[in-house]
Amino acid sequence: MARINEHYAKLPASYLFPEIGRRVRAYQAAHPDAKVIRLGIGDVTEPLAPAIVEAMHAAVDEMARRETFRGYGPEQGYDFLIDAIREHDYAARGVAIGADEIFVSDGSKCDSGNIQEIFALGARIAVTDPVYPVYVDSNVMAGRTGAIGGDGRYAGLTYLVGNEANGFQPEPPAEPVDVVYLCSPNNPTGTVATRAQLERWVAWARANDAILLFDAAYEGYIADAAVPHSIFEIDGARDCALELRSFSKRAGFTGVRCAFLVVPRGVTGTGPDGKRVALNALWSRRHSTKFNGASYIVQRGAAAAYSPGGLAQTRSQIAFYMENARLLREGLVAAGFTVFGGVHAPYLWLRTRDGAGSWDFFDRLLADVQIVGTPGVGFGPAGEGYFRLSAFNSRGNIEEAIARIRRGFAGRA
Amino acid sequence: MARINEHYAKLPASYLFPEIGRRVRAYQAAHPDAKVIRLGIGDVTEPLAPAIVEAMHAAVDEMARRETFRGYGPEQGYDFLIDAIREHDYAARGVAIGADEIFVSDGSKCDSGNIQEIFALGARIAVTDPVYPVYVDSNVMAGRTGAIGGDGRYAGLTYLVGNEANGFQPEPPAEPVDVVYLCSPNNPTGTVATRAQLERWVAWARANDAILLFDAAYEGYIADAAVPHSIFEIDGARDCALELRSFSKRAGFTGVRCAFLVVPRGVTGTGPDGKRVALNALWSRRHSTKFNGASYIVQRGAAAAYSPGGLAQTRSQIAFYMENARLLREGLVAAGFTVFGGVHAPYLWLRTRDGAGSWDFFDRLLADVQIVGTPGVGFGPAGEGYFRLSAFNSRGNIEEAIARIRRGFAGRA
Repeated sequence: MARINEHYAKLPASYLFPEIGRRVRAYQAAHPDAKVIRLGIGDVTEPLAPAIVEAMHAAVDEMARRETFRGYGPEQGYDFLIDAIREHDYAARGVAIGADEIFVSDGSKCDSGNIQEIFALGARIAVTDPVYPVYVDSNVMAGRTGAIGGDGRYAGLTYLVGNEANGFQPEPPAEPVDVVYLCSPNNPTGTVATRAQLERWVAWARANDAILLFDAAYEGYIADAAVPHSIFEIDGARDCALELRSFSKRAGFTGVRCAFLVVPRGVTGTGPDGKRVALNALWSRRHSTKFNGASYIVQRGAAAAYSPGGLAQTRSQIAFYMENARLLREGLVAAGFTVFGGVHAPYLWLRTRDGAGSWDFFDRLLADVQIVGTPGVGFGPAGEGYFRLSAFNSRGNIEEAIARIRRGFAGRA
Repeated sequence: MARINEHYAKLPASYLFPEIGRRVRAYQAAHPDAKVIRLGIGDVTEPLAPAIVEAMHAAVDEMARRETFRGYGPEQGYDFLIDAIREHDYAARGVAIGADEIFVSDGSKCDSGNIQEIFALGARIAVTDPVYPVYVDSNVMAGRTGAIGGDGRYAGLTYLVGNEANGFQPEPPAEPVDVVYLCSPNNPTGTVATRAQLERWVAWARANDAILLFDAAYEGYIADAAVPHSIFEIDGARDCALELRSFSKRAGFTGVRCAFLVVPRGVTGTGPDGKRVALNALWSRRHSTKFNGASYIVQRGAAAAYSPGGLAQTRSQIAFYMENARLLREGLVAAGFTVFGGVHAPYLWLRTRDGAGSWDFFDRLLADVQIVGTPGVGFGPAGEGYFRLSAFNSRGNIEEAIARIRRGFAGRA
């Protein structure tokens, strides 16, 4: 009799995005002529940059010839990609990261789901609320929480509430925790942590011997030179922080799949004997035991995102999406919405109208203006009463969405 | 104070292949002119088949145009690949597998490392010995075992010994276990389970309410029409078995990365309340929470392995490797070795000479004939005194290796 992992049963039956899909399908079945505009899932829409396309074609051709064929690669990633990451993402910002501190993977969802494995089951975890659901769910599945309560919170997990008062950037907790997931620029709220806020987090982590898991998947969207792109731009972070990076949003790789995790050698946890253990050694073991390297072709494409052409082309894509975000933000404000984010991130976080719940607002937006967004409560109980819209779409669809919102909501504030 | 996962400390400091690499580097540093032939790591050497290359170029081009660009795909995999798998791997062999029973991934190493997560920490696990190390290590890291003993065995794990008497195909255990990892054609021994042996495993699993995790990564190398390619060719397996498949060895994808896991809806485990829970639902949850789909380009390449051209070309590659295996096997026998495997798998499993330990034989083979293999003990204590050679190499290197072995060992048996 094979006993199953009983913690899976703690997760709600329906995950956020499948439920959205179900409601949209039902609406479209009832209204087959409706032209629904999807601003829900945060998925890129622009094609891959020419420099990346060229590099992947060249890599496919290498794989087609015996002399240049590549089989298993290094589990950590190829040097050509690791060196490009070190130079462009870190050295260019004054941060020294060693080649053996970077672990290339097939996606940040995997990395952010897997990273919890290197901590003890008894480790005390904190997440912001609202939050990217993978941080929470992967800890629930591992058994680090109790059941979910009527308030939508799992017992045993610390929630750091982001709200309008703190600009959706909660301060470090007063209670003792071991590991904190942070995401900036933030998914879902689109807000960004300032240098001063990041300095407070690092100081807190060092003072409390805690670990920061810093998710910078959207750093490419930062528009203000004063905002750090990496937690390692903060003094002392190399002793207390890991950083997640992704090519998904920065180079349009959501369907291509490449990301990396930075684990500085100085970050340590504690073994049962009280001895300090480098998290780098643990993650290296995890990565080499359960992963076999990202696709060679994909890694060549990712490296090309750092070429002069690739940098220019991907920056231009990001500028396009961020112009979408600006237009959407202005349109929402003109229609009387209270809006957050959308300046350093491709997400807008809006307060629903008339105090509507997130799902009621979802249904209303779909029924009244045929726009799909994401209910804020899907990202945690503190997201109730809020709603996420994504700026990933064609300019035409963004303009049409704005026109519909203005027609549907203007004057009704 | 972040407590780490203390179970990682149970793993030996040095993993098998890094240790091999270390010894080879040391030898080459001392003998810079030596031409070392590597038959160690089981990595393909032939370039990708033209049909696969063509499909990946076309997919890269699709990603280059807005109209055909693909972002996030279905986490389970695209229908075009799942349908090809259902038709060619299963329906063609009389096995009906549903589209929602197939989960495409970026590699079988990931799947075989991750699958243990859906079972309770208290689940009783059995592995064959010798065995692919990931099965063992991933359970150690999860905390399902005690410490490793002086005999090289982890407390709490059941070892099913493969030896010359049972043809390296151990029978089901007498003691109660919940989950058994099986691999056929087998890595490392190169032996294959017959239909009768698989029937005994399925009957045992059903009688004992146990789960078989059947790793068929090498099924493409089966040469005898009477040997099943899938565990699901055995009646009743759909109620007790999961199957791991990979494109790595069958289509040369070790550097491209694609695999899949089949979880029939009928396979269930038991929750804490005694209710039956479908493993399909658990794996689906795991897959969609911690994984974001395999690369679109890679999935197009994998699907092309099932096209008429792709099938012919990849079968020709396999035939090439298996001719290597035949030559190697004959050469080893001629040099007085006792050899197993190499008929339905690209691995040869040989008894060391003069009762040498696996690592001593490794050193001797490297020093005397400049050939790198894999010490059998690296796959578990029952592998001591054995040695694995891989048939993945150029014909020239295989012939040179045979010549060296015959010169180095003939007449010394």
